[in-house]
Amino acid sequence: MNFLEERIVKDGVIKAGNVLKVDSFLNHQMDIELIDRMGAEFKRRFAGKPVNKILTIEASGIGIACLVARHFGVPVVFAKKSQSINIDGDVYTAEVESFTHGNRNTVLVSKKYLNPEDHILIIDDFLANGCALQGLISIIKQAGAEVEGIGIAVEKGFQSGGKIIRNLGYQLESLAIVEGMDAEAGTIQFRPQDE
Amino acid sequence: MNFLEERIVKDGVIKAGNVLKVDSFLNHQMDIELIDRMGAEFKRRFAGKPVNKILTIEASGIGIACLVARHFGVPVVFAKKSQSINIDGDVYTAEVESFTHGNRNTVLVSKKYLNPEDHILIIDDFLANGCALQGLISIIKQAGAEVEGIGIAVEKGFQSGGKIIRNLGYQLESLAIVEGMDAEAGTIQFRPQDE
Repeated sequence: MNFLEERIVKDGVIKAGNVLKVDSFLNHQMDIELIDRMGAEFKRRFAGKPVNKILTIEASGIGIACLVARHFGVPVVFAKKSQSINIDGDVYTAEVESFTHGNRNTVLVSKKYLNPEDHILIIDDFLANGCALQGLISIIKQAGAEVEGIGIAVEKGFQSGGKIIRNLGYQLESLAIVEGMDAEAGTIQFRPQDE
Repeated sequence: MNFLEERIVKDGVIKAGNVLKVDSFLNHQMDIELIDRMGAEFKRRFAGKPVNKILTIEASGIGIACLVARHFGVPVVFAKKSQSINIDGDVYTAEVESFTHGNRNTVLVSKKYLNPEDHILIIDDFLANGCALQGLISIIKQAGAEVEGIGIAVEKGFQSGGKIIRNLGYQLESLAIVEGMDAEAGTIQFRPQDE
């Protein structure tokens, strides 16, 4: 097991309905040292990729993206989930369904911050059905920019999101891929990865 | 002028209605190097404070808080803006009005992540009327924890939030305090600070 898988076994909480709660270290309380280490690992996995910008989606992706971005020396752009009066009208948009919240959102990125010269690494905390990721990829395509890779903290390998994205030819690196969970026994299985 | 004031003069956009847009470097696209430097400056200004946790509020506070937290070696907890099925019911809550979005939100923090032993530094991107800050302070008080200080990137010094918080005796450090803006002339005045 790698460091993130070990932490999930130690502090993750498995709930009925295939819910994995990692809010003690990843998306409510955030262990900065752990996430900084994830940044170093993404830098290793995407070595040689000409990444000049990281794209993520609010809210829980932002902190991870910012700590990862330090390792790449690049800025972060985060997609916003609703129209704000502080965003100019000229935006790229996509429709995204949230598994966690059970609703649909329009996500948007100002056209000023994505352009055809950009080489984007997408970073997010969770990948399940892949809706958020598909929205971000759509936005990058609208901008004419390049997706250099996708870095995810925790992928639910038993849902279809990861498979679809890999089938499309993207380099998708998930630090922990959950193959199965048993809420009653409190056990979790990860997909084996090269160390 | 300090480094953040200089950046606001260079890349901030002043709009009618006292709107200052800093979304090219602070809260849509994020300049990680700049924010990391803000973290070092907050560490200097709160030197000697026994901070063991940083509290912020989603969404645009999270990235700043995470980069600041590295300088303190502490975890981040971010208050969430709506009830999620992934948060347990046992939460501290406060009502917060958003100047930017013109609506009211319930913000919440799980009781698991704030307790009476905590010494909290609050971090946020903007301070105007101080509603978000008052909500975070209320949540910290509900937990019986201590507010060690408040670090803000940009304060609108011509609104009442900062004055109220300082009158209450909190150490409030805003890296840039805007005293006035002229949208037509494109000029901005900062409150002088000790360097």
